[in-house]
Amino acid sequence: MKLDTSKKILIVGLGLMGGSYAQALTDLGYEVGALARRQETVNYAKSHGLIRHGETEVREAYVGQFDLVVFALYPHVLLDWLGKYQQYLKPGALLTDVTGVKGRVVYAVQDILRGDVEFIGAHPMAGREVSGVENADKSIFRKANYIVTPTAANTEEAIDTCMELGRTLGFARISRLSPEEHDDMIAFLSQLTHCIAVTLMVCRDTEHMAAYTGDSFRDLTRIARINDEMWSELFMENREALLSQMDLFAEKFAVLRDSIDRGDTAAIRDMMRLSTRRREYFDK
Amino acid sequence: MKLDTSKKILIVGLGLMGGSYAQALTDLGYEVGALARRQETVNYAKSHGLIRHGETEVREAYVGQFDLVVFALYPHVLLDWLGKYQQYLKPGALLTDVTGVKGRVVYAVQDILRGDVEFIGAHPMAGREVSGVENADKSIFRKANYIVTPTAANTEEAIDTCMELGRTLGFARISRLSPEEHDDMIAFLSQLTHCIAVTLMVCRDTEHMAAYTGDSFRDLTRIARINDEMWSELFMENREALLSQMDLFAEKFAVLRDSIDRGDTAAIRDMMRLSTRRREYFDK
Repeated sequence: MKLDTSKKILIVGLGLMGGSYAQALTDLGYEVGALARRQETVNYAKSHGLIRHGETEVREAYVGQFDLVVFALYPHVLLDWLGKYQQYLKPGALLTDVTGVKGRVVYAVQDILRGDVEFIGAHPMAGREVSGVENADKSIFRKANYIVTPTAANTEEAIDTCMELGRTLGFARISRLSPEEHDDMIAFLSQLTHCIAVTLMVCRDTEHMAAYTGDSFRDLTRIARINDEMWSELFMENREALLSQMDLFAEKFAVLRDSIDRGDTAAIRDMMRLSTRRREYFDK
Repeated sequence: MKLDTSKKILIVGLGLMGGSYAQALTDLGYEVGALARRQETVNYAKSHGLIRHGETEVREAYVGQFDLVVFALYPHVLLDWLGKYQQYLKPGALLTDVTGVKGRVVYAVQDILRGDVEFIGAHPMAGREVSGVENADKSIFRKANYIVTPTAANTEEAIDTCMELGRTLGFARISRLSPEEHDDMIAFLSQLTHCIAVTLMVCRDTEHMAAYTGDSFRDLTRIARINDEMWSELFMENREALLSQMDLFAEKFAVLRDSIDRGDTAAIRDMMRLSTRRREYFDK
């Protein structure tokens, strides 16, 4: 499927991410429809030019017209939705998602799916510390990464279309990983960092500390302002990978702690030099 | 002592911080001199208008002319310097420093100091990931915090002058803490965060991960690019306070880990809601 503007696109779930997808695609001339739980959400998205039309009831006459369906839902809601409504989908439709964990989602979806539609997982690595359609903002995709996570069940054509969607949305880097590689990477790069930020923030009552706080504490805790419903579910859906990254971090942290306790300046400096060298990869 | 421009100011140590102090004060019309280890450093600072004059030898005829002396040295170097050269200081001179730890420095200095000069500790909470006089930049003081850490040995007049110095340099917030309060705060807000960033960066070889890295990992590791000589010394000088903050963090991190392991979503969400609430203090 070539992703030209004759293709109709349905966004299921109009939160921050669904709303931002809708905005980017509508602005490019696509006919974008949406399903949302609340009528006010649909009204907001229409009146702000994010979508052409939208509904709150899932009807075959509506759902059956779309060539591409983007599920911007929590993982468990996505599986429920497909269980109930997949018979409404247009034959040949391509389905994708925005979920931040892949292994537990992609195979489960592909297992239950009709043979004449195709689901391919994708993870747009973009976000904000706020949620809801009223914070939708397609500029969050600029400079961000978009990862497509195909399995053996996917066709090369669908993979191409899904990567094209990432480029169309305006992502800076599009890449392809297996669901397992993705989840390991995300456990380390994203979920572990959120665990650390949350932990830092619950350690002490910091209200009176704002006057003494430099950039480093602010940087490390920016993501401590977190959507607890979404992130707790993401943690649960990627539990083993996350636990193993948390254990790795705790182990290395204990090594540093013991070096400080022993006064082993050489060991501390070795760690710091390694971290300095490795951090340079990210400045490029 | 009123900090008017008739006062001559000596900066001992022309690194990033000493150079930035020199730049700010020279630009305001003060006569700023400097002592540096290398002649090239003095030449650079003079030719770039950071100082009016500077030397590499410590001579009484030079040192004895200054009313205010700012030590921008590593802690152990500061004590060595005073042990050798304090007899050269002008009677009535006010001395201050820029060191990031206070308890181990301030009392040690005050213990060995002549009775006719006064030392008062200060911590300019500003910095960059780069070092050296060629990176000196007075704009790092804007929006930053400046903490004065007097002891019972200090006069109110000296405390006032030292706080005035912070305002003169352009710091956004000037505050006053005991050396012990300062070190506890800094162990948590600054040293612990550097330990976390370094640990994150040594966990895995992340070179191939740059394409998958979102803002959160970049934010949490910005300070992993670190001056290992300076920070290992700061860690050692504040060892007990830092270890106790590291232990507190490790304990709370283990609580989160166990909640994830048990699948206790309610406990995870409670932590996240607390972290979200507390993080809001820092957005103001």
